[in-house]
Amino acid sequence: MAVDKYPSRNGQRAQVMERKDPVVHRDPAFSDGPLSEKEMNAFGENGYLLFEKLFNDDEVSIMKSELQRTMEYNQNRDGDDVIKEPGSNDIRSVFEIHKDSGFFQALAKNERIVKVAQQLLGSHVYITQSRINFKPGFKGKEFYWHSDFETWHQEDGMPDMRAVSCSIVLTDNYEFNGPLMLVPGSQKWFVSCPGSTPEQNYKSSLKKQEAGVPDNDSMTRLVDHADGRINRATGPAGSVLFFDCNTMHGSAGNISPYPRSNVFFVFNSVENKLQDPFSGQPPRPEFLANRENTEPIKPIK
Amino acid sequence: MAVDKYPSRNGQRAQVMERKDPVVHRDPAFSDGPLSEKEMNAFGENGYLLFEKLFNDDEVSIMKSELQRTMEYNQNRDGDDVIKEPGSNDIRSVFEIHKDSGFFQALAKNERIVKVAQQLLGSHVYITQSRINFKPGFKGKEFYWHSDFETWHQEDGMPDMRAVSCSIVLTDNYEFNGPLMLVPGSQKWFVSCPGSTPEQNYKSSLKKQEAGVPDNDSMTRLVDHADGRINRATGPAGSVLFFDCNTMHGSAGNISPYPRSNVFFVFNSVENKLQDPFSGQPPRPEFLANRENTEPIKPIK
Repeated sequence: MAVDKYPSRNGQRAQVMERKDPVVHRDPAFSDGPLSEKEMNAFGENGYLLFEKLFNDDEVSIMKSELQRTMEYNQNRDGDDVIKEPGSNDIRSVFEIHKDSGFFQALAKNERIVKVAQQLLGSHVYITQSRINFKPGFKGKEFYWHSDFETWHQEDGMPDMRAVSCSIVLTDNYEFNGPLMLVPGSQKWFVSCPGSTPEQNYKSSLKKQEAGVPDNDSMTRLVDHADGRINRATGPAGSVLFFDCNTMHGSAGNISPYPRSNVFFVFNSVENKLQDPFSGQPPRPEFLANRENTEPIKPIK
Repeated sequence: MAVDKYPSRNGQRAQVMERKDPVVHRDPAFSDGPLSEKEMNAFGENGYLLFEKLFNDDEVSIMKSELQRTMEYNQNRDGDDVIKEPGSNDIRSVFEIHKDSGFFQALAKNERIVKVAQQLLGSHVYITQSRINFKPGFKGKEFYWHSDFETWHQEDGMPDMRAVSCSIVLTDNYEFNGPLMLVPGSQKWFVSCPGSTPEQNYKSSLKKQEAGVPDNDSMTRLVDHADGRINRATGPAGSVLFFDCNTMHGSAGNISPYPRSNVFFVFNSVENKLQDPFSGQPPRPEFLANRENTEPIKPIK
């Protein structure tokens, strides 16, 4: 078993450790990407980049009808890869959409997003996880603070912090409909979480995360490091948010009439493929953490 | 029993009715108050006014220590007038603070707030309800959309829409720590809510309101009337929010490290004193709806 650079959930006291990997993995072979030096530095500093209208209105409406079609197709399916709101038949997420051999498979190869991921990770990339998210109006539940990497490391054996999430926003995100909140600079620190990983934790954690949740003191320290800033990913449909796998993020509930939906791709470096989970438990299912097709993506127009 | 101008919770289908009372009750005898004509019109149009720093930092720190003292005094009291967070001993609200024969009693008479209420309601005023609210960081719960008047009319027998809430903010309210959200213009409409009023509803409604909750269609109509706007009462400690008794408001949860606390006074016109509840049930306790001392407040410096 590889050395665990980021121990967590091992019964120890919660603690905040320095990150042991670069945030921006520069490599000359991937430096001719779309990002300017300023944007690369901003990602290194804040742990995210938000591009307004990276996709135009026509493209967004096509994505929305594809999302609707996928939701309807899965409405009465009860697979583990279809997550429903607690106590209702409303779909919250559908996973592994990049394997739909259709629209989302092609979107996952779109050069506007793949080349950004390659440039940030300094290598070829593949999709380690993908899903569509639908957060209803009026009763959208909160999603508490978490680092995705903490889970992907513990439960999927992702060795290093060398992955980037890409959220294509399909609805206008306002201040008042529970937008994603990010703590700028939090990616530079790893919060080792208290507690341990329950067996088959994913069966519940996709609805409400209990393991791998940062304690209050660690969260306060991260926000203090950010000079009290908590930024929100607001913007029109078609905007795209790239955020580092370890950027602390969460969202409050959504009591507004406006639902929120997005397409979510996680690009991992081909040099950071999943190993045995550091939790010591069996790997999570393929739909959550791809181990099968991890060939480099060839970006398409 | 008086004619019920605003029927609700009577088993009928939910519906949106026009308001039958003015929003601004102009009276020459109370027209020399602190509000300009522009501010009076803004209140009539939006249903609220937000004054940044109406109280200075020194005054705010005195209020905060008084709030802390009151919370500590009530920490181990289990009276109905002390509301605790569901499943914990943390205090969410302490009611009837304007009768503490001390600091808050004086604050409730402060001319900076009383004269605004007199001018808006066009009459002498008294306090129909008061409380201090404490919304913790990290786990502050959401408070769903509601019109206070709908409850005060049904459960306390407040006959007309002629009361104004005054919230003195003791902590900085940001976009990200669950600030109060208001639908501008919603005060012009009355949402008759579905369902009925359970016996002793207040015993649960102060933690989670179930009766008198607007349905989704009515909420969508109110937000549409506001051209999609949902405004947030953000601002520094010492700011004061005045909002009409029928302005639809709510707040999302607070997962930020920053708690929110405020002092809340509800001024009612002396010409609008409480009658028998329109729900037909016994009146709620005095701490929720004052019937005993309703003499006009004499404002003090």
